[in-house]
Amino acid sequence: MIGIELEELMARRDFRSVATELSKENPVDIAQLLSELEDNDLAVVFRLIEKKLAAETFSYMDQEQRQILLQIFSKKEIKAVLDEMFADDVVDTLEDMPSNVITSILDNIDEKTRARVNKLLQYDEFTVGSIMTTEFIELYPEMTVEEALLKIRRLGIHSETVYTCYVVEERHLIGIVTAKDLLINEPTTEVKYLMQENFIVVNTRDDKEDVANLFRKYGLIAIPATDSEGCIVGIVTFDDAIDVLTEETTEDMHKMAAMTASDDTYLKTSVFDHAKHRIVWLLILMASAAVTGFLILSNDEIFKIMPMLIAFIPLLMDTGGNCGAQSSTLIIRGLSIGELKFSDFFEIVWKEFRVSLLISAVLASVGGLGTYFILGDAKVAIVVSVSLIVTIVVAKLIGCILPVLAKKCNLDPAFMASPLISTIIDFCSMVIYFNVAYLLI
Amino acid sequence: MIGIELEELMARRDFRSVATELSKENPVDIAQLLSELEDNDLAVVFRLIEKKLAAETFSYMDQEQRQILLQIFSKKEIKAVLDEMFADDVVDTLEDMPSNVITSILDNIDEKTRARVNKLLQYDEFTVGSIMTTEFIELYPEMTVEEALLKIRRLGIHSETVYTCYVVEERHLIGIVTAKDLLINEPTTEVKYLMQENFIVVNTRDDKEDVANLFRKYGLIAIPATDSEGCIVGIVTFDDAIDVLTEETTEDMHKMAAMTASDDTYLKTSVFDHAKHRIVWLLILMASAAVTGFLILSNDEIFKIMPMLIAFIPLLMDTGGNCGAQSSTLIIRGLSIGELKFSDFFEIVWKEFRVSLLISAVLASVGGLGTYFILGDAKVAIVVSVSLIVTIVVAKLIGCILPVLAKKCNLDPAFMASPLISTIIDFCSMVIYFNVAYLLI
Repeated sequence: MIGIELEELMARRDFRSVATELSKENPVDIAQLLSELEDNDLAVVFRLIEKKLAAETFSYMDQEQRQILLQIFSKKEIKAVLDEMFADDVVDTLEDMPSNVITSILDNIDEKTRARVNKLLQYDEFTVGSIMTTEFIELYPEMTVEEALLKIRRLGIHSETVYTCYVVEERHLIGIVTAKDLLINEPTTEVKYLMQENFIVVNTRDDKEDVANLFRKYGLIAIPATDSEGCIVGIVTFDDAIDVLTEETTEDMHKMAAMTASDDTYLKTSVFDHAKHRIVWLLILMASAAVTGFLILSNDEIFKIMPMLIAFIPLLMDTGGNCGAQSSTLIIRGLSIGELKFSDFFEIVWKEFRVSLLISAVLASVGGLGTYFILGDAKVAIVVSVSLIVTIVVAKLIGCILPVLAKKCNLDPAFMASPLISTIIDFCSMVIYFNVAYLLI
Repeated sequence: MIGIELEELMARRDFRSVATELSKENPVDIAQLLSELEDNDLAVVFRLIEKKLAAETFSYMDQEQRQILLQIFSKKEIKAVLDEMFADDVVDTLEDMPSNVITSILDNIDEKTRARVNKLLQYDEFTVGSIMTTEFIELYPEMTVEEALLKIRRLGIHSETVYTCYVVEERHLIGIVTAKDLLINEPTTEVKYLMQENFIVVNTRDDKEDVANLFRKYGLIAIPATDSEGCIVGIVTFDDAIDVLTEETTEDMHKMAAMTASDDTYLKTSVFDHAKHRIVWLLILMASAAVTGFLILSNDEIFKIMPMLIAFIPLLMDTGGNCGAQSSTLIIRGLSIGELKFSDFFEIVWKEFRVSLLISAVLASVGGLGTYFILGDAKVAIVVSVSLIVTIVVAKLIGCILPVLAKKCNLDPAFMASPLISTIIDFCSMVIYFNVAYLLI
């Protein structure tokens, strides 16, 4: 079904067809269809969706549209939707709302969900606690496979959370059992003989990005989260981990382009917010570039001796910046997916040093010969070549060292990307250029 | 267990402890431990691992180490390892090997796996076929829940592939049933009453990146892949999708920093290959920067009239480059995660235009006033301010238009990132600068 069809059916007030068509769709797609509707039609269409599907759709909708619905809904309707949702999705819905709205909504959901939601609301947004769900299946070591299957049958509402069950003794997590293990073993076997005692587990206060990386590394469907005493309090599922990975990568990319990261999508962010996210770094970088400018100005007598040197300012600054950007991007990405560590520091520096020698040899030859053939001035060609070599080596070293050091100092390496590195290297390249020029003249 | 412990145990030739310790570990971690061993120890330790765990570990090892093992192993050992692996992991192992090795290995695995591997080897590396596995559970509409569970029990070897079963009629995929549905329903219910007939399905020839994005969008554990006639031939699982997403993002980042993407990790890539991946773009960009240089050289009489203008070359070029980088990064990332489409073109341009006006107002004020107070020259300050405004607007527009156009022309938008955009904007900013200066003098 496409948006235009929905609009046509709504225009004809053919609600029955709308209901039939929507019931065939995936909640993610329904949420997308709803996002294209007028505010007036939103509640009308939402009410046509079957209860369970509606709750799932609600958890995929924009915060803005969810607020509109919650304002229109009766208390009974709010309860119907929220009771069907995962506790962590309810928390997502509540997070950005004013506290009086949160309180009034919490009053309307069932006690069990309320307790879960309250608990989840306490976790910092960077922690595992903020993305975990508290719905999971607890088993006991003495249970038989048959009893375990019975419990799953009774409790297992949401598919992604039933495929790994957690074996608990005195509230402590002691093992995991997969649904597959239960399916392929004899009904009388006790759970303790099936459970894996070596499993990946995280703490609710761990950084959610680190946990998302565990999913990437081990390819798991869910990871249990325990409190400081080793008691299981929730699980993180792979779909939430994919969301975290996507968000974190987007954030990294934005930082790498000298912007403050934003939670909202590009089109949803206002012009003013866009400007706000970008301006601070632009001002800092502009001020730094001004310093390079004054360095050039205070050395401008060199252009009286060799006026042609002025032509190579962009070439040196750009090449240095590009070389630094290459190195810093490789290192930042390597650090962020856990491929590189601080202990690789010397290996990285040594590798970049050799790469920079190779690259500078080629670029300096091409640059130097090109200059000589076009301008016919051997002295200028030599100054350009030598400056290129030194600039490239320095650029590659700065580009690889700064991100690793940032990581070591617990700063985000993503800030040590192209724009900042370029500005630093601009300055260095001009210092190198003038010194080489003075030396050779 | 950490690498040092393993080394110590190996030094003491305490193989029994090695075997015990390794049996407690996750295959991903064992593969990492093995990667730190000397080649001589590798086969010794690998043979200590229990058969099933060994096969899983093998699928997580480096290609290099796998080759070493395959050379040392007897035919029987090769068969033991490969028979336990997923067909798609066997394909990964074979892919980079010389064809005579592939043939000799294929001779050594069982017929069923060989047929599967042969089929998978035919798919292009960019397609769904190259990442799917051919192991999945087929059910028929008339089967009862009990019969279905029996089939899973009989076939379901690998956990991630049993949680969704595929209902087939005359080889055509007509529905999906989750393991959860089977668990919570009566044993006598027929599968056709439980199956979902609306489900996400892809073609084996589809782009694997697009399919990975479906996992991101819908949060699924597995997606079935059919041939052009609608017959199911394999499934893609979420862990392979996470790998694809990670690879594609890394590739995007590398392209955005003007590098050819590499399959290998940073440390595994040789110095020569690193240089090769980076040098082509550096040469192109250096040549473009030279053009900007000659533009400056041919306008150098302006510096005789107003020598101070030379100080603002870096400031204008850097600010323009940074503004362009911000816009292009936002757009490239938005396009790559499907948040932005070509149809948003005018909205994007209009938004960037307004953002650029806001930003240029602030930057031009700060830049202009700063210049005036430091240099005390109102004329220079005006030239700098006006040039900044025009440069920022042009930079933001180029930065947002080029990636969208690239996408429309089926080019990778990632190439339209910072380095290329900066070089283009450098030239534009100097044209603007000189024209403004001539106009105002």
